[in-house]
Amino acid sequence: MLASGRKKLLTALLQAQKRPFQPSRDMRLVQFLAPHLTGPHVGLESENGEGVINLNAFDPTLPKTMMHFLEQGEPALSVARSALTAQLPVLPRSEVTLLAPITRPDKVVCVGMNYADHCKEQNVSVPKEPIIFSKFGSSIVGPYDEIVLPPESKEVDWEVELAVVIGNKGKHIKATDAMAHVAGFTVAHDVSARDWQMRRNGKQWLLGKTFDTFCPLGPALVTRDSVADPHNLKICCRVNGEVVQSSNTNQMVFKTEELIAWISQFVTLYPGDIILTGTPPGVGVFRKPPVFLQKGDEVQCEIEELGVIINKVV
Amino acid sequence: MLASGRKKLLTALLQAQKRPFQPSRDMRLVQFLAPHLTGPHVGLESENGEGVINLNAFDPTLPKTMMHFLEQGEPALSVARSALTAQLPVLPRSEVTLLAPITRPDKVVCVGMNYADHCKEQNVSVPKEPIIFSKFGSSIVGPYDEIVLPPESKEVDWEVELAVVIGNKGKHIKATDAMAHVAGFTVAHDVSARDWQMRRNGKQWLLGKTFDTFCPLGPALVTRDSVADPHNLKICCRVNGEVVQSSNTNQMVFKTEELIAWISQFVTLYPGDIILTGTPPGVGVFRKPPVFLQKGDEVQCEIEELGVIINKVV
Repeated sequence: MLASGRKKLLTALLQAQKRPFQPSRDMRLVQFLAPHLTGPHVGLESENGEGVINLNAFDPTLPKTMMHFLEQGEPALSVARSALTAQLPVLPRSEVTLLAPITRPDKVVCVGMNYADHCKEQNVSVPKEPIIFSKFGSSIVGPYDEIVLPPESKEVDWEVELAVVIGNKGKHIKATDAMAHVAGFTVAHDVSARDWQMRRNGKQWLLGKTFDTFCPLGPALVTRDSVADPHNLKICCRVNGEVVQSSNTNQMVFKTEELIAWISQFVTLYPGDIILTGTPPGVGVFRKPPVFLQKGDEVQCEIEELGVIINKVV
Repeated sequence: MLASGRKKLLTALLQAQKRPFQPSRDMRLVQFLAPHLTGPHVGLESENGEGVINLNAFDPTLPKTMMHFLEQGEPALSVARSALTAQLPVLPRSEVTLLAPITRPDKVVCVGMNYADHCKEQNVSVPKEPIIFSKFGSSIVGPYDEIVLPPESKEVDWEVELAVVIGNKGKHIKATDAMAHVAGFTVAHDVSARDWQMRRNGKQWLLGKTFDTFCPLGPALVTRDSVADPHNLKICCRVNGEVVQSSNTNQMVFKTEELIAWISQFVTLYPGDIILTGTPPGVGVFRKPPVFLQKGDEVQCEIEELGVIINKVV
């Protein structure tokens, strides 16, 4: 496979030239581990979702981390596009471990109170400007990894969110140009320790948001042209099978374009930067009485077209 | 030079064995660019401070970024130690550009209100627990780079700070073990847009702290064993030559060991993570009337034994 990757790439490129370019609607990039491979690799979910195509085997010159893959930009994406149309070996799902589609980004930017109903449930008015906070990259875990309840918190809560992954560097990006800077979308769980977020640390939210394992991501980075409309996707969170959050990304106050324009006033956005776009209503802390995650709980965060991440609380 | 690096390494190691180990008191690691080299390299300030020794030429197997250098841990540091005692070519200061000693860390952790007098000048009580916020890695610039005044802020202020650089990974680190996790120390300027920090963004400090260029660092990562006592260093900030902050790190409320123990309750600390330990009194916003940085100002942040960073405001 390794030796024949180049030849297959050429064949695939030649095949691709025979037909007019069609934007792929199912490019789902993943980072994965497999017992016969050393370290993380970049792959593609197979068409039926039953396995993973090893892009590093298809083209050994491709980077093995999504960060470097995205830094290569269009040439890397073009190889992945070719792999979609080639007949390639598929590693069965049971033989691979999916990692978060992005690890070690420069930034995990988070947006607070970005669903009107989520503002209503906490009796605050809808913000006139996006409210920006952050998590450290060290909080990121894979789509099926465990969320570790820290002994330091008694109030760990769920928040399903649409995550935007940046593909192209930019500063002072105009809203009208913003989508050209997006590599794609994925599902995020913005796990939140409410005691630390709301009452400790001088009311700076960071610590409550950034405990290790507090940012499950995945299962795949679904490329921009594979998502018909990122602002019209059903979004929901289930705890132990019970639906606790259920909304649609069309309820977001500030959409992807406005968020990128806003954030890039302050910072240069780099390939691999992640923006968590806020959570819909239904979190535990505003229930009467409040409900928090317990050891043994299983949280499923799901977004239409993007997929589901399933994280057990331990 | 490249070809002879290995031989020089061996010679240096043999020389080092002839005398008892002495902790070096002058190991000052830098990242630098030079016209004849491609990309960043890791180096060592020469003994007289007049130039830079190229560690990547001395040992071509050493990583070329400080992040990867620190990830290698003791073996990399040991090579640098050998280079100190070898007679190696020195690149004159005029031929190199010093970068920040760390770039692209996983975390820039910041501590608020960590000098008792700085609390007094803003009429707040000394915090009982460290207050933790953050900057994005994208705000880091080199020791002599420009601070760009963003058009979005009218209240950009200075803050000199002692920065701790993590060398060894750890979680739930005990205060008594904390120093073993420290690679060294450097000077940081925690540039702060007070309007965004104090009145906008739902009072989350992040945006006011993380504009591009808001984290000048350097000039060198001075290793732990090169600093006699990190908590007894004169620290000062000068704007256009006038002293605006002048204190000693012995005034810190929470010292390095307590900060590492505190922060590592929440997050795993990784090699290259940076902790900005708070600023002494004398910032511009609490003056009567308040004073803010203007285009053309030159800010010097200096810490005894560590050095000075000089950043022009443009």
